[in-house]
Order: sequence, then C-alpha cells, then structure tokens
Amino acid sequence: MQRALTLAQGAAEQGEVPVGAVVVHRNTIVGEGANSPRARHDPTAHAEIIAMRAAAGRLGQERLTDCDLWVTLEPCPMCAGAIMHARITRLYFAAPDPKGGAVIHGPRLFDRPECLHRPEIYSGMREAEAADLLRTFFKARR
Amino acid sequence: MQRALTLAQGAAEQGEVPVGAVVVHRNTIVGEGANSPRARHDPTAHAEIIAMRAAAGRLGQERLTDCDLWVTLEPCPMCAGAIMHARITRLYFAAPDPKGGAVIHGPRLFDRPECLHRPEIYSGMREAEAADLLRTFFKARR
Repeated sequence: MQRALTLAQGAAEQGEVPVGAVVVHRNTIVGEGANSPRARHDPTAHAEIIAMRAAAGRLGQERLTDCDLWVTLEPCPMCAGAIMHARITRLYFAAPDPKGGAVIHGPRLFDRPECLHRPEIYSGMREAEAADLLRTFFKARR
Repeated sequence: MQRALTLAQGAAEQGEVPVGAVVVHRNTIVGEGANSPRARHDPTAHAEIIAMRAAAGRLGQERLTDCDLWVTLEPCPMCAGAIMHARITRLYFAAPDPKGGAVIHGPRLFDRPECLHRPEIYSGMREAEAADLLRTFFKARR
C-alpha cells in the first residue's frame, strides 16, 4: 500500500484526484497506476484500470488470476467491474468512498447475485493517509 | 449501428465474444472498438472501452460531452461506469444482456440515486442481428 500511496501523491502533484493502485503477483508488483484521466485524455484512466492493464500486458494474459490489487480508495463501478473481469484474487483498499464506491457502498457489485467473481476484500489499511491526501487535494481546489 | 455490427462480426472471426461499439460526435465516428480481451491481453478491452478511449484521445479531452455511444450489447457494470465518467450524451444498444447487463438488468447503474450522469438510453435497434451473432458464436464453442 505504500507504493499505491506514493502513486496517489504523484497524481495530486499532477492536478489529478489522488488515487494510486498496484497489482501484485507472487510478491512482485507487476502493474501500477496513478489516476490520470486529465493528462491522458481518457475517461477510463483510473489508477486501478491502468494498473490492471499493465499487469495483464506484462503477464501476457487476459485475466489476473493469482493477482492482488492494492488501491488507496474504494473502487467505483467501472473499476469494480474490471476487477471482476480480471478475476483479481484479493482486493485491498485503504479509504472508503461513500459517494462513488461500488464495493461496500452504492451498488455493492460484488454482493449482487449476478456477480461472476468476488475477490476476497480487505479495507482500512493506511486509511487515514489515503483519505487525507484526497481531503487536502479537494480543499486546495475550492 | 451497422458499423458496430461489422466490428462485432470481426471480433467473432478473431475468436472473441462478438460485441462492437462506435462513438459518434457531430455525425462523425470518432472512436470504434471490437471486443478483444484475449488478443490484447487486457481484461478491460470491451468494445465500449476501446471506442471511448479512442474517441477521447482523438478529441483530446477527458470527457465525451456531446458524444453518443452505439454498441451491439447492453453494457456491463465496467462499461456503464465508464459511460458515466465519459458523460456520454446518448447510449444506443442493440441486444439486452440479462446475465451481464448493468443498464436495464442487474444493478441498473444509471437508475441508482448516486449515479452522477445518466445518458439518454435507447435500445432494440438491430437487436435480432446482434443477438444472433452472439448466439451463433456461443453455439459453435459448445
């Protein structure tokens, strides 16, 4: 999660909402991403999507079986859907997102009957730091 | 929708689930995609995601304001979430997807209270052709 927090901090410095993510496969980081839709001109460029695309490309496979995703914020519906498609084994997220989250808030996609793959879900590690990055970012923009 | 169907047919010929999508901006196609997670080693490579990323890149902006998305199948949670982030104006889909759809089935993401952007939604045009492509594809695989 330290690496994900560092990536989030880097996003903030670029004027992007500070969220960072890494994909870990057998104790090695195989993909990482910092939220960057503005810089990339890409509405799908959330940290999780970038990290999972990088990991799948590196591993040369469609799915991320045996991979864990660490992210500083609760994933949104787009990213939760991508986590399902990728068959991520364990999802670790730092801060909850009551407004935009889709894991323990809103549609709670992994708890729905039609959900095809539910990762193990762990949350709250480094939560204060991840939330503080977001709070500071939005406060400065007001 | 004709172009989206042609892209779906192309996906089938590559052994990918046949779904195609195009993004239209002022009567011009500015992005298109054929479902291709296997070939691209990318779990997020659904037709809609590819088409929206291409369109945003071409237009040089984070959002697809004033753009319409035409897709041969009802979008899944990942793609519906991306449609929200992209602020697509109108969504046209051909065939419904009772198992994986997230627009008029499952979580119905655009009807949820926390949904930040709901496109106008139209469905059913060229439905028989789009559904037939999928039926034929899955039948041949059994």
